[in-house]
Amino acid sequence: MSEFEVLGSEVQWNGKFLRAGVERFRHRDGEQVSREKVWHAGAVGIVAVDEQNVWLTRQPREVVGADASLEIPAGKLDAPGESPLQTAKRELAEEIGKRAGSWKQLFAFYTSPGFTDERVWLFLATELSDSGPAEADENERIEVVRWPLKRLDAAISECEDSKTLIALLWLAARDRLT
Amino acid sequence: MSEFEVLGSEVQWNGKFLRAGVERFRHRDGEQVSREKVWHAGAVGIVAVDEQNVWLTRQPREVVGADASLEIPAGKLDAPGESPLQTAKRELAEEIGKRAGSWKQLFAFYTSPGFTDERVWLFLATELSDSGPAEADENERIEVVRWPLKRLDAAISECEDSKTLIALLWLAARDRLT
Repeated sequence: MSEFEVLGSEVQWNGKFLRAGVERFRHRDGEQVSREKVWHAGAVGIVAVDEQNVWLTRQPREVVGADASLEIPAGKLDAPGESPLQTAKRELAEEIGKRAGSWKQLFAFYTSPGFTDERVWLFLATELSDSGPAEADENERIEVVRWPLKRLDAAISECEDSKTLIALLWLAARDRLT
Repeated sequence: MSEFEVLGSEVQWNGKFLRAGVERFRHRDGEQVSREKVWHAGAVGIVAVDEQNVWLTRQPREVVGADASLEIPAGKLDAPGESPLQTAKRELAEEIGKRAGSWKQLFAFYTSPGFTDERVWLFLATELSDSGPAEADENERIEVVRWPLKRLDAAISECEDSKTLIALLWLAARDRLT
């Protein structure tokens, strides 16, 4: 049994891919609380590695004023009926021009569970091969970066994106994680 | 010179601690883009460790349906004029009942730079000592958890919160990071 129940959800703003509003809850001890909430469809991120490199991107992130944010390939879950793994496969081909022979889910986490239900599924993609050119139309500002694993520390220092920090720190720690 | 300029910001929803709306930008090549945006004051997280343990919390995260989310101590930048480090010191005392003799900033990252300007400053806090009891009033549902570092892998497996994953993976990788 859950520690609280949802009393009601009130969407007060409808964007194209976000909604915002207030949700009310009642805890088992009777206390009622309200939480501001941003509804989000979720996203995937891909840790694409070969023996020597991890495949990254640079792209503008206008919302935070970043000209060229260093990030793993990623994308929103915006195709109806598509699973996170299917989205990850599609995004790896579109953004990087690669396919992977092996896929493994590493994490599923909330980017900021205090106010948004955005969840990110993070996959490890290995046994990479070319799948054709990256699709230029919607990705024309996405630069593909082949980053040497021996310079992983420098990527961790530069990165300001949570899903990418999780990916890079996982790579740095993977030998000692079970 | 930046790769783009802000043409205008339109806040379309005002919450108590969030705002949502649309921002428009013009890139140097002339292309104009619109981005849905959630404005957020930012937050801090604290990696509080002694020789044997990392100090964590469990708390309900109603917005994502979690009864007891495993997280590092953290808090929003909601006190006017308070720096991230000052907020971190206050939150460590309020949530965990500890002060630290040594503070070091590890990271400053965006939780989801595609749609929100929420930035999290992550601090390493060491040389811990008791500062008095955690403040029960606003934190009554926050359980303090002293987690043995030798069981770090289990915390990483359980955790679903991005800032906490970054903290725990950094702990797992720190010996090999410069």
